[in-house]
Amino acid sequence: MLLHLCTWAEVEARLARSTGIILPIGSTEQHGPNGLIGTDAICAEVFARAVGEAEDALVGPTINVGMAQHHLGFAGSMTLRPTTLIAVVRDMVQSLARHGFDKFFFINGHGGNVATVTAAFSEIYAEHSLRRPDDGNGSGASNALRPRCAIKNWWESEAAHRLSRELYGAEEGSHATPSEVSVTYYAYPDAIKSAEMSPRVAPSGRFTDSTDYRSRFPDGRIGSNPALASAEHGKRIVEAVTPDLAAAYRRFLAE
Amino acid sequence: MLLHLCTWAEVEARLARSTGIILPIGSTEQHGPNGLIGTDAICAEVFARAVGEAEDALVGPTINVGMAQHHLGFAGSMTLRPTTLIAVVRDMVQSLARHGFDKFFFINGHGGNVATVTAAFSEIYAEHSLRRPDDGNGSGASNALRPRCAIKNWWESEAAHRLSRELYGAEEGSHATPSEVSVTYYAYPDAIKSAEMSPRVAPSGRFTDSTDYRSRFPDGRIGSNPALASAEHGKRIVEAVTPDLAAAYRRFLAE
Amino acid sequence: MLLHLCTWAEVEARLARSTGIILPIGSTEQHGPNGLIGTDAICAEVFARAVGEAEDALVGPTINVGMAQHHLGFAGSMTLRPTTLIAVVRDMVQSLARHGFDKFFFINGHGGNVATVTAAFSEIYAEHSLRRPDDGNGSGASNALRPRCAIKNWWESEAAHRLSRELYGAEEGSHATPSEVSVTYYAYPDAIKSAEMSPRVAPSGRFTDSTDYRSRFPDGRIGSNPALASAEHGKRIVEAVTPDLAAAYRRFLAE
Amino acid sequence: MLLHLCTWAEVEARLARSTGIILPIGSTEQHGPNGLIGTDAICAEVFARAVGEAEDALVGPTINVGMAQHHLGFAGSMTLRPTTLIAVVRDMVQSLARHGFDKFFFINGHGGNVATVTAAFSEIYAEHSLRRPDDGNGSGASNALRPRCAIKNWWESEAAHRLSRELYGAEEGSHATPSEVSVTYYAYPDAIKSAEMSPRVAPSGRFTDSTDYRSRFPDGRIGSNPALASAEHGKRIVEAVTPDLAAAYRRFLAE
Amino acid sequence: MLLHLCTWAEVEARLARSTGIILPIGSTEQHGPNGLIGTDAICAEVFARAVGEAEDALVGPTINVGMAQHHLGFAGSMTLRPTTLIAVVRDMVQSLARHGFDKFFFINGHGGNVATVTAAFSEIYAEHSLRRPDDGNGSGASNALRPRCAIKNWWESEAAHRLSRELYGAEEGSHATPSEVSVTYYAYPDAIKSAEMSPRVAPSGRFTDSTDYRSRFPDGRIGSNPALASAEHGKRIVEAVTPDLAAAYRRFLAE
Amino acid sequence: MLLHLCTWAEVEARLARSTGIILPIGSTEQHGPNGLIGTDAICAEVFARAVGEAEDALVGPTINVGMAQHHLGFAGSMTLRPTTLIAVVRDMVQSLARHGFDKFFFINGHGGNVATVTAAFSEIYAEHSLRRPDDGNGSGASNALRPRCAIKNWWESEAAHRLSRELYGAEEGSHATPSEVSVTYYAYPDAIKSAEMSPRVAPSGRFTDSTDYRSRFPDGRIGSNPALASAEHGKRIVEAVTPDLAAAYRRFLAE
Repeated sequence: MLLHLCTWAEVEARLARSTGIILPIGSTEQHGPNGLIGTDAICAEVFARAVGEAEDALVGPTINVGMAQHHLGFAGSMTLRPTTLIAVVRDMVQSLARHGFDKFFFINGHGGNVATVTAAFSEIYAEHSLRRPDDGNGSGASNALRPRCAIKNWWESEAAHRLSRELYGAEEGSHATPSEVSVTYYAYPDAIKSAEMSPRVAPSGRFTDSTDYRSRFPDGRIGSNPALASAEHGKRIVEAVTPDLAAAYRRFLAE
Repeated sequence: MLLHLCTWAEVEARLARSTGIILPIGSTEQHGPNGLIGTDAICAEVFARAVGEAEDALVGPTINVGMAQHHLGFAGSMTLRPTTLIAVVRDMVQSLARHGFDKFFFINGHGGNVATVTAAFSEIYAEHSLRRPDDGNGSGASNALRPRCAIKNWWESEAAHRLSRELYGAEEGSHATPSEVSVTYYAYPDAIKSAEMSPRVAPSGRFTDSTDYRSRFPDGRIGSNPALASAEHGKRIVEAVTPDLAAAYRRFLAE
Repeated sequence: MLLHLCTWAEVEARLARSTGIILPIGSTEQHGPNGLIGTDAICAEVFARAVGEAEDALVGPTINVGMAQHHLGFAGSMTLRPTTLIAVVRDMVQSLARHGFDKFFFINGHGGNVATVTAAFSEIYAEHSLRRPDDGNGSGASNALRPRCAIKNWWESEAAHRLSRELYGAEEGSHATPSEVSVTYYAYPDAIKSAEMSPRVAPSGRFTDSTDYRSRFPDGRIGSNPALASAEHGKRIVEAVTPDLAAAYRRFLAE
Repeated sequence: MLLHLCTWAEVEARLARSTGIILPIGSTEQHGPNGLIGTDAICAEVFARAVGEAEDALVGPTINVGMAQHHLGFAGSMTLRPTTLIAVVRDMVQSLARHGFDKFFFINGHGGNVATVTAAFSEIYAEHSLRRPDDGNGSGASNALRPRCAIKNWWESEAAHRLSRELYGAEEGSHATPSEVSVTYYAYPDAIKSAEMSPRVAPSGRFTDSTDYRSRFPDGRIGSNPALASAEHGKRIVEAVTPDLAAAYRRFLAE
Repeated sequence: MLLHLCTWAEVEARLARSTGIILPIGSTEQHGPNGLIGTDAICAEVFARAVGEAEDALVGPTINVGMAQHHLGFAGSMTLRPTTLIAVVRDMVQSLARHGFDKFFFINGHGGNVATVTAAFSEIYAEHSLRRPDDGNGSGASNALRPRCAIKNWWESEAAHRLSRELYGAEEGSHATPSEVSVTYYAYPDAIKSAEMSPRVAPSGRFTDSTDYRSRFPDGRIGSNPALASAEHGKRIVEAVTPDLAAAYRRFLAE
Repeated sequence: MLLHLCTWAEVEARLARSTGIILPIGSTEQHGPNGLIGTDAICAEVFARAVGEAEDALVGPTINVGMAQHHLGFAGSMTLRPTTLIAVVRDMVQSLARHGFDKFFFINGHGGNVATVTAAFSEIYAEHSLRRPDDGNGSGASNALRPRCAIKNWWESEAAHRLSRELYGAEEGSHATPSEVSVTYYAYPDAIKSAEMSPRVAPSGRFTDSTDYRSRFPDGRIGSNPALASAEHGKRIVEAVTPDLAAAYRRFLAE
């Protein structure tokens, strides 16, 4: 169920059943010659909604802009500074914790978010950890609501690994991958693009800032050949990966 | 055109034609007994996309969570602190300015965002204004890219006033209005809700924090009767208001 | 009564009678060819003190520097960044709330402050709104002191509109207005300036940063002819507007 | 000359003669049984204006609220957090540096401000110091405007020491001193208060937070007997100390 | 060579030969019944110095306190909030970049630092990435100094894996491991502790805040049996792992 | 006892005996032609450990990088911005306060830290001072743990003054003094440097940013002749000054 399509009374009723929530987090950044700038946000949203349906779980609003400073050499790419993204995640978690949510499962579409979102979780936990149990703030560990957070990259599920190996082998790469492009083509068939890939498979390697990135990866891809992407592959990936993510969410709730 | 559905090369090509961009900003907050929690984000997105199509303009990612601290007494409502939202708007504008965008037109779905987003614009402008023309930073006023920003509330267009008067008269109110609820019903007909309104028209007034808000407006509405909302009204509103917003965008570009 | 001229014991005694306080907030910025750089701070202070006397209310210290980034193209203008001003307002309100003040009435002399000060109020309220009623912090909504804040622009009172229409008609304008200049001439007759206005009435319009502002409004005025200002007008304005502001303060206390 | 009573054109003309400016910084805090809450701001303003007249120097707006967290146990006392005050000083200095001011002389009325304002100066200097001379920002050390800042406590001038010794001997103390109270009585004769001092001379010592402070210094004074204060003493102090401060300002400009 | 034991002239001379620097980062946190609170800082320092000697590289000051909020349930543990640590890393890198250092190799002793330090690198890179090449700041990508940063966990080198497998097998665990305890015993033989381990091997699992951590891991260890640690093992580990880290540093310089 | 060499159980046992802790804070900055860049951190550490031994007191981790923006004109110098250092001190104190430590004695090796660390203490105290005793947070002044902090410059003890006068007279100076250089030579005899001093005694004076500093003090020294330093002097200084600092720590605990 999408939080955006509920009334507050419906959310209140759901809270009585489960205090978990799924939060999609993506990015707005170049994805090579034929990938969409919204690829990571679209993938996060697609999988979050699929898991939400599979598990009858609530799905919160999508964080559309993530930490993607390295992509800023390509038109249309956007970033939040890490300290900004930490504040966003903190405020969102605190808002929902106000109502009684205490299990936050971020389904992530962008590798560049992982470090910052993980740091944000620590920033949130630190508020509790730095408080004395008996410091006159009355914050006894026993009765305070303490949020629990996790981030799950959809492409690191077992099914995602299996399918990408099967469909693309060594041409999957690590940015603007045919897997992620396929998922977006499945979700937005009207937005399918075609472009020459030259070289067919992009170079691999590490990077620092946006100038460095662009000089190493001139068309934006890393190690991939997204010309292999198709909507039909996207459908297969979504159908195969969703159960993995759903199981991860169930385990998270049960922990 | 949605930025999320472009490739970076398409954005680069568009930039040669126009350096303007439309950014929808909404909120995730209660909208009374039959209004959706995503109402403000949905409305901002609906109008931004409609204007984008009408004007062949680029539409950036939606800011889904806005400044809505006063709604936190109702389950599912979320807020960014004003200082967080200022950082978000600053980072988004700076990211796009990096590529050459310099006219930022925020289409807004939530009154609570206005003060903070306006402050964010000043925070952005201040970076230029506090720099000496000849201070050795080389930042001569003549050649530096200086972003120009505006925020436009869709419900304050003339057509929106006219229609709400015609359709709802004094029952429009100011929060969880039948106008905004209608727009979301038009956009998401499967999410139409029905609920008793008691009293038929909600009380009016001011508020401070979330506890104060809930004590004054127990079901979340202010001054409105959203039972009057319908998808058909929503269609009329979108069709009538879009040209007004499109004209506002054209004026903004021409300023 | 001015807080600055009280002893702490006198403040303690006053708190037993009223927990309201008036806070003047102005700006330090150019006001055209014959207006004083302190105009907005002076006006805020004049009206705050007049209301303080009329209502036997406590008047706190003046915030002399406000948010005025757009004026920095003119010598002597100063600004706080919005995020700085938010921190100032928050710290001032929290300081006074520590003693039991809970009704904060800002009398404002500068339009550029409104958005940022309003955002500051939300930043303050958010601290309460983001707290769970039963989260182990013991912060039950029932017994916590929760500040209530308002900002009142002196020039938006009915009497101010009436007099400016009567005295200056279409030459009032919106920055460096004859009304505000008159108030400062009344308060500081030794500082009356005279200058040619060319053109007689300044151009009108919008602006972004300080370079943009100066290019549109070369002598600093917007839409006004402050050559019409006089100390005698200032006296009339102060006498006419004060009762309006005093009534607004009474309504604020009674809300 | 007070900046607040100048036009921008007058400031521009002055800048051609001197790029120095005097900035009064005070505090809003309890000053014992008969001292005014505004004592430190009043003293800073009195001396800043006197030096301004003596030296034909420009005097900027007063920072009325300083760093006074330790006084918050007494009604009416206010504080900025140190990080807030650092931001205020930075923004004020950067604003004036924008116009060409580069010598900032803070005349200080409150010992509690010294550490924080000194830290603020370092925060300002650090922006230059952390920049590479040839880092592509074009910020060569040779041509960039680099502000120079100093803070001067009026009570630490030689004349102030001499007079306080002569007039009050060991009863001067260190907070709510008869010297500072005298200066405010001279400036605001209508606000002279009288109160029993019990004990005649207050205890001395150190303190941490506001609870600690109040438990050690129950009526707010430290080591002083402000019953000795008088407007006539205030006059003598102002007349004797001003030349010392004026000389300090001249030395600062000449450095 | 330790930066702390150089003169500035020696550093200047070294910079002409290499612009790389090694920075040890540790933590101050509980390490179970027989592990030292300084374990992670000690390990980082030991390896950084060993690599410094092996490669004739400069070694900067140790960051002794890292991100360790989850350990605060045990006496003596300390943490920086993630946002604080980001500021520390940024200031340190910017300081050294001022002199011409541009390759920063953090040798890390604490898993909890990785996400935050990685986010800090992005915060640093973002300053460059968000700047327009031709924005009037003169910051052309070609000539600006742009720092490159990496973080290397000593325990993730191949030799570390091999030795821990050989020496401890499944009793290595993931916190308060016999490997890291051995390294500190080798470095500080006078500080060797002995304690009963009950159970012999600690439980494994995930954790959130400090209360959660302590309830899952009552004596602080995770999955380990540090009773196996010895100074002699420590010597072997240091000797085996240093060449791996040295090679990683060489590769980093050559990238 | 060094915190780094304790187990958490040992710290817990110590806390039952004393809630005081010593924290060394230094700097990483040029110290003239023959002084070590780590001089201030080394001195702070040497004295903290000596006092720790003398008083059987716990000694926490060293803050190696302090506020030294003015030294950045010399290779190898590092600084934290004042706002960063304030956050570091706050997080460290809050971490230790979590366990019950409430008396924090910083032994300082660098004059440039004093203002910022003092401001940090006020930032910490302000959190308590801004809280209402009965504000629903339950933070009654009576039972809340409230940290008490002090900073002690080792070179300002009586013994340090006496010895520097005796050994170096007018050639002690104020930066890169023979006293501090001697202490580091005693601690690190292998790092003793020799260099020509020209002029023999460096010039004296004030400074602002790093460019200003370097232009006034071309080899980094202020007013000193560190060629007089020797390890033997260092031994005498450490032995003479330690009892003074130990006494200061005892007085601090007893306050």
